[in-house]
Amino acid sequence: MSREVSALERARLGHRPELPDILTGGFRNVTFEEGDATTAVRDVDRIEASFPKTFGRPGLDLVEGGGLQDARALSVGVVLSGGQAPGGHNVITGLFDAIRAVHAGSRLFGFLGGPRGLFTGDHRQLTAEVLAPYRNTGGFDLIGGGRDKLESAEQLAACRATCEKLSLDGLVIVGGDDSNTNAATVAEYFIDQGVETVVAGVPKTIDGDLKENGVEASFGFDTATKVYSELIGNICRDAASARKYWHFIKLMGRNASHVALECGLRTHANITLIGEEVQERRATLDQVVEHVALIVKRRAEAGKNYGVCIVPEGLIEFIPEIRVLIGELNRILHEDAKYFESLSLFSDRQEFVNRKLSRDSSYAFSCLPVRIQQQLLLERDAHGNVQVSRIDTEAMLVEKVTERIGEMQARGEFAGRLQVQDHFFGYEGRCAAPSNFDAAYTYALGHLAAALIAFGKTGYMCAVQKLVAPPGEWHAAGVPLTSMMQIEDRKGRPTPVIGKALVHTEGRPFLELAARRSRWEIEDDFVFPGAIQYFGPREISGLPTMTLLLEHGQDPAPAP
Amino acid sequence: MSREVSALERARLGHRPELPDILTGGFRNVTFEEGDATTAVRDVDRIEASFPKTFGRPGLDLVEGGGLQDARALSVGVVLSGGQAPGGHNVITGLFDAIRAVHAGSRLFGFLGGPRGLFTGDHRQLTAEVLAPYRNTGGFDLIGGGRDKLESAEQLAACRATCEKLSLDGLVIVGGDDSNTNAATVAEYFIDQGVETVVAGVPKTIDGDLKENGVEASFGFDTATKVYSELIGNICRDAASARKYWHFIKLMGRNASHVALECGLRTHANITLIGEEVQERRATLDQVVEHVALIVKRRAEAGKNYGVCIVPEGLIEFIPEIRVLIGELNRILHEDAKYFESLSLFSDRQEFVNRKLSRDSSYAFSCLPVRIQQQLLLERDAHGNVQVSRIDTEAMLVEKVTERIGEMQARGEFAGRLQVQDHFFGYEGRCAAPSNFDAAYTYALGHLAAALIAFGKTGYMCAVQKLVAPPGEWHAAGVPLTSMMQIEDRKGRPTPVIGKALVHTEGRPFLELAARRSRWEIEDDFVFPGAIQYFGPREISGLPTMTLLLEHGQDPAPAP
Repeated sequence: MSREVSALERARLGHRPELPDILTGGFRNVTFEEGDATTAVRDVDRIEASFPKTFGRPGLDLVEGGGLQDARALSVGVVLSGGQAPGGHNVITGLFDAIRAVHAGSRLFGFLGGPRGLFTGDHRQLTAEVLAPYRNTGGFDLIGGGRDKLESAEQLAACRATCEKLSLDGLVIVGGDDSNTNAATVAEYFIDQGVETVVAGVPKTIDGDLKENGVEASFGFDTATKVYSELIGNICRDAASARKYWHFIKLMGRNASHVALECGLRTHANITLIGEEVQERRATLDQVVEHVALIVKRRAEAGKNYGVCIVPEGLIEFIPEIRVLIGELNRILHEDAKYFESLSLFSDRQEFVNRKLSRDSSYAFSCLPVRIQQQLLLERDAHGNVQVSRIDTEAMLVEKVTERIGEMQARGEFAGRLQVQDHFFGYEGRCAAPSNFDAAYTYALGHLAAALIAFGKTGYMCAVQKLVAPPGEWHAAGVPLTSMMQIEDRKGRPTPVIGKALVHTEGRPFLELAARRSRWEIEDDFVFPGAIQYFGPREISGLPTMTLLLEHGQDPAPAP
Repeated sequence: MSREVSALERARLGHRPELPDILTGGFRNVTFEEGDATTAVRDVDRIEASFPKTFGRPGLDLVEGGGLQDARALSVGVVLSGGQAPGGHNVITGLFDAIRAVHAGSRLFGFLGGPRGLFTGDHRQLTAEVLAPYRNTGGFDLIGGGRDKLESAEQLAACRATCEKLSLDGLVIVGGDDSNTNAATVAEYFIDQGVETVVAGVPKTIDGDLKENGVEASFGFDTATKVYSELIGNICRDAASARKYWHFIKLMGRNASHVALECGLRTHANITLIGEEVQERRATLDQVVEHVALIVKRRAEAGKNYGVCIVPEGLIEFIPEIRVLIGELNRILHEDAKYFESLSLFSDRQEFVNRKLSRDSSYAFSCLPVRIQQQLLLERDAHGNVQVSRIDTEAMLVEKVTERIGEMQARGEFAGRLQVQDHFFGYEGRCAAPSNFDAAYTYALGHLAAALIAFGKTGYMCAVQKLVAPPGEWHAAGVPLTSMMQIEDRKGRPTPVIGKALVHTEGRPFLELAARRSRWEIEDDFVFPGAIQYFGPREISGLPTMTLLLEHGQDPAPAP
């Protein structure tokens, strides 16, 4: 290897992730046991109508017995779809090692640049030599990822052509909810077209919002939240040492607040905002601001002009009045697109829009900082929609909280100081070297994908279960992709999709936060998780996320 | 301990840093050997005149032999001055363990909130029980830090009163260049006043700019740069995986670019800007922008619309034309303060200033983005000076590079894309749990401070040397504070100070960067250092910075 590698990376390249017992041995003594027929999350009839060939398949559990009868060489393709997540490379090495354990002649092809590589056939054969420098590393740089969809008739036909050309026994699609929805479509299409390639999905996303229905966690969430928690813990310690700044920390994760919740639980930051809670309480933006401002005020009264507030990236979109506003804006902008575009001044656009908005939305709009109003009316996406994703939630929150505190100050209701530092953590964690947990989890997922292919089980998502136990004890299951589906509105059309798992406000992770946060708000009860450790005892280097522990009824607080 | 601690922190609380052999055993078999009389870095006569009692003292080396004859109980005070740096708590535990090893009745007092605690006498007795939860932890939260100076006659008198009231045998001042300059003043003052308290300085700053003259490194630099390098490495991997963004990363460190240099060396980021080089080459802002834009262009031509650029926080202040401009602005603003203040419009101020500036400075001013011009003319500090430190160097650089690329695009000279993500790392690393290196280094520094006090050696900086060897082999020396001094202009007055150590463009760390960077600019030759490891072999968990290794003539590249 000509590339210079760090000492830690070199050690990781030689690391052998612990494999679930059931996944060892080339599948010679295991078999998939079929459970009951499955259904769908919701909208059962419509999901069945959309997936007539694959709907209702039984859940699968890999158990001892039987064994792979036909241990022939396998040809398998793999594609990394969507944003990076720690462990992607280990899915691939796990897949490779497993198909090689089945038969030394097995071959693995990586499609380059995500789904696009699958359409164009652009691929790379992945050999032991090619893979050696990527074992247990972060990033998707081995074959690259991409955000193309796999939906249209042309794409499906191109995908078929590629699989047939390479005579693939299996195609492994590594991705989030959308990519796994696409995997279900491909699986259905292949059966319909008589293509024999088995399609398997692997749950990937640092956002943690692809889970439930038998899938315990998406890979990458563990590592990414550990990186963010390291940094947040360091910042909490800095805040408590300098006693000078409020740190507002935005965390990646637009659609769900799992990352914020996990990091809040690990660090006991003074405030952790959860989008789903805001939505459920039907809180207004002003109420969210007031909530934060009051904690700033109470801490100042206790002599603490500092603190740490965690803000999920997608917070703004969870605020009901903002959702309604965005909906109305998009409708108005579409209906009167031509006239609207003819208005070149922001003030004219503002006037026009205000006349058209409902009373509530007009009020919500006027409460936004002018900068944000401008952004919404002047910059629109390719479909002509307002770019809500561009709104910098945390900068806006800081702006409004600062305003509110200034108001209190002027009224003599606030005698402290508010100096803010803001942070955004996202890119820092997506390509970290996978934690021992994620390294083992993804290596197992790769093996499990190989098992599904070897046993000819198409249309399943790889589900490694009992993840709170040590890896040796993990279970290996197959969850029918259709069983995870429901109908949702996409671009105005009811569409069968695998839904995003949101934070449940009645779930244990959130309840843990809710039960303890009033103390964290005022006391400095910070916990400092520190950097991810790859060596040392399991409680330091191998425990899964608090979210996972709590969801499995375990107490994540380390023994005193 | 009622506080909840993470598993890693619990393990670190029980960690016993490796101590240099020479510092073990309660100083019963060691003694300080005096070297030659010392002088000063520059301006020898004026330093001698300012420090008649302490100037010229010999350097000290702790060597075997002799041994502490008078092993009586010691009373010692410690103060943490300035910004946090990883290892501060270990200086204190090292000091405590060492004075207890001298005599079980020894007592340690921590002054609260930095030098202010020393004036007011506000302190806390630090016992084994108090210290137990702080061993090997980050932060300064045990006793707090502070940025007060220790200079005026009143402050010195108050400091004397406190030391006398507590009958202190020693006072340990932990801080950067300014704080150690203050330590020299206190030492001189105490001798002059017949106060018997020994004053010892400890070199602290994550910026790495307090070194040379026998001091090999300031503590905290190792840990902080390892945290930043972890993140930068992760971002490099993300950039190479997504192939979509240029990441501009600003790193803390206003006065010197050691942090940027170390992180550049560790990660091989595509671009690492070094303020000292910019200054030496007398580069203009436009030249710096052009340099970056050309690399962006060359990478785009190679199909790489992504990259990573490291920017030292203080870059702008190193650009000679900007320095001159700032100087002129401050002069103008002082001379015509009243009239200037009467101009409330930015455009009026701009017009006025432009009339008064030299031709070169007027040009430099007009090249700044309007936002920065406004900031300079509208916001001034308590002394009426422009707030150059508020200029967001990296945002400005991004703005100007983006402009330049846009220009190239319009001319058909750039066919790529430039999408930027920016980052600022500083607070993330200042309070990290000290690396094994920093934990051992600071623990040794604490012991060495105790030795200086026990042997009655005042006015010295603790200098633990041979830091590239394993800790057991480190040397312990005392460097006379006055020997590190020179005269510099402070607030318009020539003042004896310990200067800041800048990056030397003829030093090995910079030369290493200079020799290798043209490759890093175009190739993706990234190195991914990963998270700080506290366990595992020394090459993973114990090596010092590349800067230190290179400065000591060692090859930091890990063997292939």
